[in-house]
Amino acid sequence: MSFMEKLKSASQHNRSLVCVGLDPDLKKLPECLKGAEHPIFEFNKAIVDATRDWVSCYKPQAAYYAGQGADDELKMTIDYIHEHAPMVPVILDVKRGDIGSTAEMYAREAFERYQADAVTVNPYMGFDTLKPFLDHADKGVIILCRTSNPNSGDLQNLMCDGRMVYEHVALLARDKWNYNNNVALVIGATYPEELKHVRGLCPEMPFLVPGVGAQGGDVEKVVRFGCDANGGGLAINSSRGIIYADRSENFGAAAGAAARQLRDLINSFR
Amino acid sequence: MSFMEKLKSASQHNRSLVCVGLDPDLKKLPECLKGAEHPIFEFNKAIVDATRDWVSCYKPQAAYYAGQGADDELKMTIDYIHEHAPMVPVILDVKRGDIGSTAEMYAREAFERYQADAVTVNPYMGFDTLKPFLDHADKGVIILCRTSNPNSGDLQNLMCDGRMVYEHVALLARDKWNYNNNVALVIGATYPEELKHVRGLCPEMPFLVPGVGAQGGDVEKVVRFGCDANGGGLAINSSRGIIYADRSENFGAAAGAAARQLRDLINSFR
Repeated sequence: MSFMEKLKSASQHNRSLVCVGLDPDLKKLPECLKGAEHPIFEFNKAIVDATRDWVSCYKPQAAYYAGQGADDELKMTIDYIHEHAPMVPVILDVKRGDIGSTAEMYAREAFERYQADAVTVNPYMGFDTLKPFLDHADKGVIILCRTSNPNSGDLQNLMCDGRMVYEHVALLARDKWNYNNNVALVIGATYPEELKHVRGLCPEMPFLVPGVGAQGGDVEKVVRFGCDANGGGLAINSSRGIIYADRSENFGAAAGAAARQLRDLINSFR
Repeated sequence: MSFMEKLKSASQHNRSLVCVGLDPDLKKLPECLKGAEHPIFEFNKAIVDATRDWVSCYKPQAAYYAGQGADDELKMTIDYIHEHAPMVPVILDVKRGDIGSTAEMYAREAFERYQADAVTVNPYMGFDTLKPFLDHADKGVIILCRTSNPNSGDLQNLMCDGRMVYEHVALLARDKWNYNNNVALVIGATYPEELKHVRGLCPEMPFLVPGVGAQGGDVEKVVRFGCDANGGGLAINSSRGIIYADRSENFGAAAGAAARQLRDLINSFR
């Protein structure tokens, strides 16, 4: 099943637009996991067990594994999701972008080494740097468009020929890069007007929306402005708000409750 | 010693503007290394031994290690350079770019886990995503500006308020992001007119210039258009042209000769 089919299927089955960001910081893990041989994996495993019925996808953030020398625990986490939550697709959040021969190596990293269903990429270097990902028709390629962070406008909001840079990205994604129908866009929840605007430009494209929870994005606006005509088309990511809902040994159940609560809040606006 | 001092010092001592790209592809390694426990590390070690007197810096491309599950060999390679060519700085080519808390993890990856002297970063997401790197005053932060690949103009050449996007990046780098004097720019050798133009905008900033050799950039134009007023300020990268100069067991010596030849060719135009 392709990423796009898997995302839709999990989203419908779990009636959920929630993406859980698996961004485990060793310094923030519950005390009860300290001393474990694979604390990051054990943490993720408990989160997955508790949340898999309330989500549409998981999104491990590669930096947390790379920065903490936990590549093996990233692999174990993705393997675990494929085995124990096989319906739920995995987005490897790496934001890669490099020249063709190098991008092929990054595609191998995401799709062969880690067996991710989808990957995030950075469009700054242009089409030929995205092609090695796009050519994997069954994988999702989620392109940064309008990101959630405070200074994302430095380049993304420059006005070029009557359109801002992020709008050019949306149009390139829609008209040129989506030849395998496997493209999605990253639009931050913190810029709801831009989200609305890109939904107008790309009525049928799925959006990955980070920035609710710790970053302060407004869930109601995200749903009202971002959903497609069928009330779907969004993967609304929460990381810290779910995985650190509780720091005691009860963290798994608390994460499950937080994921379900976010799912229900989102659904109340659909 | 900071990255900028180290780069200048190695460049002067070896009278070289050559950066050797360490992009080892297991499929392309010499036969004699097949069967080695750490073939990628052994390959890099021989390249470093043979080239260290002719170069100003090394640039391992992270994708080749990530894609081939060779993170440990990347670490071994960088450790080896620090021990056996301690004068020569290491640029970890990762082209990262992510929100603040995540970028901090990527800074840890580059500067703590791998002990790189400098890192390449992608500016699409704006200042706050670069800051966790820029704040390491002794490390180099090399920002993508005008990249060497065919479709780099998709976004980089969009015209905004009378300047193209890549020019905006150069000006932001010069005027806002260089508060620790640790910023350099990536400008592809394949676009010599743009290189000349950015040199005009940023007369004193070092440039990392990929794209000579296999990608077809013109060395003479790069030197004439890219050098600063002192005939320096460039790190001209060659990967395949040096590391695969010979595929026999003589590969190390051949790489050394190729690096020296490129150095001399570059110097003939300075």
